[in-house]
Amino acid sequence: MAKKLTSREKDYSQWYNEIVQGADLAENSGVRGCMVIKPYGFAIWEKMQAELDRMFKATGHVNAYFPLFIPKSYLSKEAAHVEGFAKECAVVTHYRLKNAEDGRGLIVDPTAKLEEELIVRPTSETIIWDTYRKWIQSYRDLPILINQWANVVRWEMRTRLFLRTTEFLWQEGHTAHATKKEAVEETEQMIDIYADFAKNFMAMPVVQGLKSVNERFAGAEETYCIEALMQDGKALQAGTSHFLGQNFAKAFDVKFATKEGKKEYVWASSWGVSTRLMGALIMTHSDDNGLVLPPKLAPFQVVIVPIYKGDEQLNAVSRVANKVKKALEEKNISVKFDNRDTHKPGWKFAEYELKGVPLRLALGTRDLENGTIEVARRDTLEKETYQIIDIENKIEHLLENIQDNLYKKALTYREERTYKADSKAEFIKLIEKGGFVYAHWDGTSETEELIKKETKATIRCIPLDVKMENGVCLFSGKLSDKRVLFAKAY
Amino acid sequence: MAKKLTSREKDYSQWYNEIVQGADLAENSGVRGCMVIKPYGFAIWEKMQAELDRMFKATGHVNAYFPLFIPKSYLSKEAAHVEGFAKECAVVTHYRLKNAEDGRGLIVDPTAKLEEELIVRPTSETIIWDTYRKWIQSYRDLPILINQWANVVRWEMRTRLFLRTTEFLWQEGHTAHATKKEAVEETEQMIDIYADFAKNFMAMPVVQGLKSVNERFAGAEETYCIEALMQDGKALQAGTSHFLGQNFAKAFDVKFATKEGKKEYVWASSWGVSTRLMGALIMTHSDDNGLVLPPKLAPFQVVIVPIYKGDEQLNAVSRVANKVKKALEEKNISVKFDNRDTHKPGWKFAEYELKGVPLRLALGTRDLENGTIEVARRDTLEKETYQIIDIENKIEHLLENIQDNLYKKALTYREERTYKADSKAEFIKLIEKGGFVYAHWDGTSETEELIKKETKATIRCIPLDVKMENGVCLFSGKLSDKRVLFAKAY
Repeated sequence: MAKKLTSREKDYSQWYNEIVQGADLAENSGVRGCMVIKPYGFAIWEKMQAELDRMFKATGHVNAYFPLFIPKSYLSKEAAHVEGFAKECAVVTHYRLKNAEDGRGLIVDPTAKLEEELIVRPTSETIIWDTYRKWIQSYRDLPILINQWANVVRWEMRTRLFLRTTEFLWQEGHTAHATKKEAVEETEQMIDIYADFAKNFMAMPVVQGLKSVNERFAGAEETYCIEALMQDGKALQAGTSHFLGQNFAKAFDVKFATKEGKKEYVWASSWGVSTRLMGALIMTHSDDNGLVLPPKLAPFQVVIVPIYKGDEQLNAVSRVANKVKKALEEKNISVKFDNRDTHKPGWKFAEYELKGVPLRLALGTRDLENGTIEVARRDTLEKETYQIIDIENKIEHLLENIQDNLYKKALTYREERTYKADSKAEFIKLIEKGGFVYAHWDGTSETEELIKKETKATIRCIPLDVKMENGVCLFSGKLSDKRVLFAKAY
Repeated sequence: MAKKLTSREKDYSQWYNEIVQGADLAENSGVRGCMVIKPYGFAIWEKMQAELDRMFKATGHVNAYFPLFIPKSYLSKEAAHVEGFAKECAVVTHYRLKNAEDGRGLIVDPTAKLEEELIVRPTSETIIWDTYRKWIQSYRDLPILINQWANVVRWEMRTRLFLRTTEFLWQEGHTAHATKKEAVEETEQMIDIYADFAKNFMAMPVVQGLKSVNERFAGAEETYCIEALMQDGKALQAGTSHFLGQNFAKAFDVKFATKEGKKEYVWASSWGVSTRLMGALIMTHSDDNGLVLPPKLAPFQVVIVPIYKGDEQLNAVSRVANKVKKALEEKNISVKFDNRDTHKPGWKFAEYELKGVPLRLALGTRDLENGTIEVARRDTLEKETYQIIDIENKIEHLLENIQDNLYKKALTYREERTYKADSKAEFIKLIEKGGFVYAHWDGTSETEELIKKETKATIRCIPLDVKMENGVCLFSGKLSDKRVLFAKAY
């Protein structure tokens, strides 16, 4: 606790790791690339889940659960999909261990080999569309609007807590529709929901757009995404929604009878966000003192720390603190009263600063005499003494203010680091500096790959609100009719 | 829909399967032994989860998440544990697929073999205690009261939807304590919570007790359980809570410094319930017409079916139906108004009967004239016409009544099939007939195994409220001081 964090400026990546671990969010496990999400981190994820789940249900979706394992042959059925996912997957080949006869311990029982290997799901399109075939006969069975909360596994070589882990938690929506129009509308609705969630709950501004062909989901006709800018000037893809066309319906032979009695392939979308959002949340708001949490996602929004000497003072302070706690809870504000006598107030202050609690109240005997309470904001680090009367309304107002302020601060940060590049040299300089760079591009995969190779920047998206304007591609010199968004990315 | 269910009497197991599939609860997937939990089934599970989660949090527990994979060596560290779980596990041996050079499709890449195989968790004691070692240094770090909601895999040879599947969903609590007393109290508290949940939410009576040594969890010092009686006279273990002693602390070297500065091993409990509860719920209440759900766990408690000819009548009926719906929702009663014009009322009646919706309201034009509404109870199949005035209070009362009635009915069923056997012949006859049989037992594993071999009955538990009485073991003739509970079991 006493140890100061490495500053962002000094070593951004080290700063991130220290916050994740120092704020008790997550840690590496004994299993390569797999993390343990600790209770405080998981409480934030639960808040995200609850809100997203509410949004999904409000738009007509229901939850279900599909198997963890995918038979190898399923993965092969959609040509683009298998290319994207076969290279980094966990393969189950056996179903039993036994004691080695030579006494060297537990070994895989060679007689328990699976006829067909099972893949631990990297995503569930294949197993779900194999199921939808049984569920869909007629237009009456459509649409299907299903979401699942699940763990998935992608065998990543380089992992970072929350940002890229072998196993991660996510939700994946999988919908089936009678028409292309409806499937596209669903795809767009869901990226809007993600953007809404990012803005209004995570206080994180995002750019909505379409992925270029190179960056599309394996098996999608179109991938919509939300992209956020982190404090090191790198972009982070925070959510995607895919229009899958009829690709999976064709791969798994899912047809429906139309009202007119014709047989047609079903149209599909899939969409997901993951525990990666935790990484985005941390990197959007936190500072060199630790985590900063938007009130809407904080496990507890307010902490009350008593300042006292001896039991008598503690009792007096506790009486008032508990009254404040109750008044706040009646306004649905979550409060922790930390009356542990094992730690000093200063230690607690540092602890809750590191953990990003939005408001810290300190209450001592002098406050009791004066009818005051000290209020410290985590976002601005400002401290102010308030009259305790009507404190619940003041706190409620402050929390709203913090939520708004965090969004505005992040938006200002992004705007200050969003550039237009009009020459190759300028582009390279800006990308090197870090930030979002809008530039003309000729629309080809070849040029995109060239740019990536030369600058490490990728096309984050073709923004949905892009303006049409004539220009020339900075790398190929060919004509271009709009700017797209480039950045180095996580 | 038109097809009648197989009756319980004719083929209980077939009846169960038809309900699970007919009521859209779950189905088998393309992956051997793994099920798809369909939206209607998952909605029931979500209600169970929400309530259990609330109960866990109310008793000071927090959620976290630990890795899906367990290194093979971890499993070996606790001697009893490995015996119990190594024999039926999914083993990940490789981390990549590739296209075969001979063009025969996707194969496991032999160069991507893991140095140490990973087991898909069958339960998480080992990975969690490997983590707790890093978290626990001092008595100040205790207790740790963590729960996780997760999927687990046990490679079962014979599977049944919900009752025994290769992959299933569950929660697993893992707690760490400074003293044996505290760990035992925690173990007992959790079995009490499970019993409370079974009784007050599932409307399912259970016997609480201790497992015999043979039936204990692999690695536990004591296993507490709740046992319910199904309608075929077989017992179902619905939840377990294990006092793990210091076994896992010793296996993973987890010690803490006491207040006095001594180093001691940490005491542990673990406890879990799973989607098996879905099977228990179905088999406890359902009848030959389909699923019967207790109101507290029904995805929707009331369905309103309009009876009409033509749009004009539908509009008139809908106006009233929507008013009723709103009034019910204001009382936190969940309602579906099924105004689909693709199905006739009779079809809908059969559908909701099969799906176990506690109350069905039917509303036609004659009802509008008379100010009435028809109310059908799923539990008793009684129909009655009510004055529509104040209907929300009547419905609220009826739902409470159904919840109580289901519990009483299940309790009566169990009491009628609970016996005492005082001779071996009587025991065999009663076990054959089905039900709970209380009998004297000499306390040895040998006799328990003999009884299982001869009668297929196992000791379900040594009930917590057992009365001490002198007797002789029915199979060995040795002295016994109490009766234990026997039954054939799922």
